[in-house]
Amino acid sequence: MDFYPIAIEKLIEEFAKLPGIGNKTAQRLALHVLNLPQEEVKEFAEALIQARGTIKYCSNCGNFTDKDPCSICSNPNREKSMICVVEQPKDIMAMEKVKEYNGMYHVLHGNISPMAGRGPNDIKLRELISRINGDIKEVIVATNPNVEGEATAMYISKILKPLGAKVTRIAHGIPVGGDLEYADEVTLSKALEGRKEI
Amino acid sequence: MDFYPIAIEKLIEEFAKLPGIGNKTAQRLALHVLNLPQEEVKEFAEALIQARGTIKYCSNCGNFTDKDPCSICSNPNREKSMICVVEQPKDIMAMEKVKEYNGMYHVLHGNISPMAGRGPNDIKLRELISRINGDIKEVIVATNPNVEGEATAMYISKILKPLGAKVTRIAHGIPVGGDLEYADEVTLSKALEGRKEI
Repeated sequence: MDFYPIAIEKLIEEFAKLPGIGNKTAQRLALHVLNLPQEEVKEFAEALIQARGTIKYCSNCGNFTDKDPCSICSNPNREKSMICVVEQPKDIMAMEKVKEYNGMYHVLHGNISPMAGRGPNDIKLRELISRINGDIKEVIVATNPNVEGEATAMYISKILKPLGAKVTRIAHGIPVGGDLEYADEVTLSKALEGRKEI
Repeated sequence: MDFYPIAIEKLIEEFAKLPGIGNKTAQRLALHVLNLPQEEVKEFAEALIQARGTIKYCSNCGNFTDKDPCSICSNPNREKSMICVVEQPKDIMAMEKVKEYNGMYHVLHGNISPMAGRGPNDIKLRELISRINGDIKEVIVATNPNVEGEATAMYISKILKPLGAKVTRIAHGIPVGGDLEYADEVTLSKALEGRKEI
């Protein structure tokens, strides 16, 4: 692909660096940008610089924020005695969308995966431990329901229980609207295990 | 999604404006950008501004270029007596990759589509006509093999033939490596029609 002028080649290259964007898509996006009004392209470029420049992690919970502590940590209306532990900032957004949880969060920025060589020291676990005190009534572990997420949840529970914290895990089961026929065995077995009287 | 700081929201919005990028993907891309080194984000932003700012259309053929006339039009080693007519600049790149064609190009920047209300005056047809003179031996119409592309090819042939130009159309047929079983009827009928003695 040495047929485009350098400036286009460079832009295609930049788009292709993004995750999940292949060469063809990068080309399509770059050519799209060329057809945009100059003003819009400038806005896009500024949004990139702005986002990267102003966003940092909350020193308390590890969430994305433009002020420290973040809007959740500094909100006086939120329940300070509950901490929901998630793997990534985007998981906070998923939880917030539900509008059912009004406690605090803690972002691990990863999970424990012996297979990939990631141990407890590679995630923000020490920071979580330092937040546990007599005021914390419950720690809800909402890591992802896969091997790494489960291992991480187990480890956290083992570490926090001796500190006197109640540690819970979000429930596994058949997704609402899901079809029993298509559920995998592990999910189904977890759903059975977690059955409730009605 | 009002849970991200404004700068992230804004960046997600900008990504979501790109063609084929949905809200989920835009979110993923924006969060990826936040984890990039500041320097790389700056480079990306500059590539956007640069590409949009320096790239224009070649006044001769309509290709993307950073100088006018473009590198193909100003290349003395290219065959000036042949013009390959394409719909978009990206089609030139596709042709150039084949490395078999050494003539000139003309970009229509669209096609004729009565259904969509696009007529001959909405594409760069006048510019093509003005390039036809006694020196032009052949005009190869390489518009896309769909209804609009065919209509455009027909129209161009009808207009250019009275000017004494030889007008040809790229061949239709089964793609190399393709499977007869999966070829649609129109393609197969075109492949039959264009059969050659071997």
